[in-house]
Amino acid sequence: MWTNMLTERLGVKYPIIKAPMLGCESPEFVATISNVGGLGAIGVGRTNGEGVREVIQKIRRLTDQPFCVNFFIPEKRMDGLEHVNDVNSVMEYYRKELNICSKPFMPPNYNIEEQINVILQEKVSVASFTFGCLEPYWIEILKKNGTTVYGTATNVREAVYLEESGVDFIVAQGSEAGGHRGTFLGEFNDSLIGSMALIPQIVTAVNIPVIAAGGIMDGRGIAAAFALGALGVQMGTAFLTCIESAAHLKHKELILNSTDELSCLTRTFSGKPARGIRNRFKTEMESHINLIPGYPIQETLTRDIREAAAEQNNTDFMLLWAGQASTLSRSLTVKELIDRLVVETEDVVNRLNESRY
Amino acid sequence: MWTNMLTERLGVKYPIIKAPMLGCESPEFVATISNVGGLGAIGVGRTNGEGVREVIQKIRRLTDQPFCVNFFIPEKRMDGLEHVNDVNSVMEYYRKELNICSKPFMPPNYNIEEQINVILQEKVSVASFTFGCLEPYWIEILKKNGTTVYGTATNVREAVYLEESGVDFIVAQGSEAGGHRGTFLGEFNDSLIGSMALIPQIVTAVNIPVIAAGGIMDGRGIAAAFALGALGVQMGTAFLTCIESAAHLKHKELILNSTDELSCLTRTFSGKPARGIRNRFKTEMESHINLIPGYPIQETLTRDIREAAAEQNNTDFMLLWAGQASTLSRSLTVKELIDRLVVETEDVVNRLNESRY
Repeated sequence: MWTNMLTERLGVKYPIIKAPMLGCESPEFVATISNVGGLGAIGVGRTNGEGVREVIQKIRRLTDQPFCVNFFIPEKRMDGLEHVNDVNSVMEYYRKELNICSKPFMPPNYNIEEQINVILQEKVSVASFTFGCLEPYWIEILKKNGTTVYGTATNVREAVYLEESGVDFIVAQGSEAGGHRGTFLGEFNDSLIGSMALIPQIVTAVNIPVIAAGGIMDGRGIAAAFALGALGVQMGTAFLTCIESAAHLKHKELILNSTDELSCLTRTFSGKPARGIRNRFKTEMESHINLIPGYPIQETLTRDIREAAAEQNNTDFMLLWAGQASTLSRSLTVKELIDRLVVETEDVVNRLNESRY
Repeated sequence: MWTNMLTERLGVKYPIIKAPMLGCESPEFVATISNVGGLGAIGVGRTNGEGVREVIQKIRRLTDQPFCVNFFIPEKRMDGLEHVNDVNSVMEYYRKELNICSKPFMPPNYNIEEQINVILQEKVSVASFTFGCLEPYWIEILKKNGTTVYGTATNVREAVYLEESGVDFIVAQGSEAGGHRGTFLGEFNDSLIGSMALIPQIVTAVNIPVIAAGGIMDGRGIAAAFALGALGVQMGTAFLTCIESAAHLKHKELILNSTDELSCLTRTFSGKPARGIRNRFKTEMESHINLIPGYPIQETLTRDIREAAAEQNNTDFMLLWAGQASTLSRSLTVKELIDRLVVETEDVVNRLNESRY
């Protein structure tokens, strides 16, 4: 039951895709997922071309299976530059607490064309993007080069825009999803649409395969996504707590012991709304919310603090991204997780077919 | 495939329950749903005992099938009484625009025990409640009297609390749902959990049947709810646009022509967060949001304005409750809708079983 247009096009055994989770992943982790039949994916964020090449080659040494490289579409505007000094002075207070050097603001700088050129040269089989839509020109070049391309939508308008731009598939990111919201057309709040509503509306609106993301943790979620018309699923939190994941142990621990009410949306860490378990940084910075610059400026301002906090095992200032179904997370190896997902999904479909619900 | 513990207990053909939608329903509409195999439900809000009895008897004259009476658990506190005069002076401005008399604030007053006593005397087969949990004492009396009782949960904590209080079932209200949020333990924002995440977490946490609500509009949604472990669904928006529904024609029209980004959560109408299509009242009152008293005070302050707006076909000030999957709404008779839901759900289950997804 696992073969469909999506698996055939991606060249994978199961339509189970790891969500890109920058900072919680490693080439080893990504390769492990691809090796057991899922699609491993790695976020390259603002890595330069050579860094992207290194990551790709590392994964290649560990798997001969397809994997996906995910990159960020740069923001059109730099919002909130005028508040940088005010916010950085609040950051200085935290740097002192964490015993790290004070740091002047350095504007973020990276080149997406450099990243795409490496993806082209390395002939990566799958590439995806978030925070916007890649120019149709580049989508066409990637596709002609043999790369399957997909983007992320949080509302119907974005899905239609992505389809018209030429992507092969669309990830429909429901409001349940952990990490950054992919919204790029319309307002963030209006695009906080739950998976149960988002997936069928996008499936109805477009003609290309849809991958469901947000709140999917087990076979029940996978079968539900199929029922809603998706051809595959993208899972983040479920993979994050895997034994092999590169997420911080404290981060895993908090997710494994979470409640469904613990996650919240916040733009305090990066300037862009993202879902994670609330901590002291989030709570304290919310009082400065009107000062906080947009993405990626705020992300640049907080980076050294987040990194130092992770090194010091201090969850007060760490990124703790998590989706809304975190109580269903499990501490398993990747192989155990995928095996269970497959059996569970098949059980749900049998249960429905035999009317045992 | 439509018989399960829930349908047997409710005595209905299909586990498809109409959401209580005070102001958009009539005894005729409720009876029509029960007559074609669903469970009609009517919200009695702050109707007095005799009013509740009249509604029940009207429905009884139109159907011999089970139906549900839904009542509100009174708030423990009256928040924001100190702002009543300020907010009422803003309302006076709108009353003038709508050419209606100025109105002093009258504190809301109703007696839930009076409502429950009528439900007991009339031996209504199903009763449900929202905005809190009925005292276990009353749940036991209702059940002993032959009434099946269910409550609404928006997070796992509420579901466990309801189960421990003795209800027969739980409605899991995902963040996609139109109308008022049922949250009664925890914060509203933390309890905006999408159905894809909420349903399986509640199903895992409790031992009684779960009814899924929020974003379910067609057979895809019903099959997805079953996959997630629910035994039935509660649908509001899908029934609201039915030919027989008592919703305002302008309200139906706006839903039938909506986009997925149009709905928003607002407490401007009633003091309690509710999801609906944004309009002028919502937008203008958001600038006074810190003054707006809690439910039911604000509900009382805005009632004459909402009623006058409906009479005048003025959508600027009307209640326009709608869920997040409103683009999937259809203008059908109740019988056509239920027939289609049944066929669609069976098609989805067959599609999954034959791996045609």
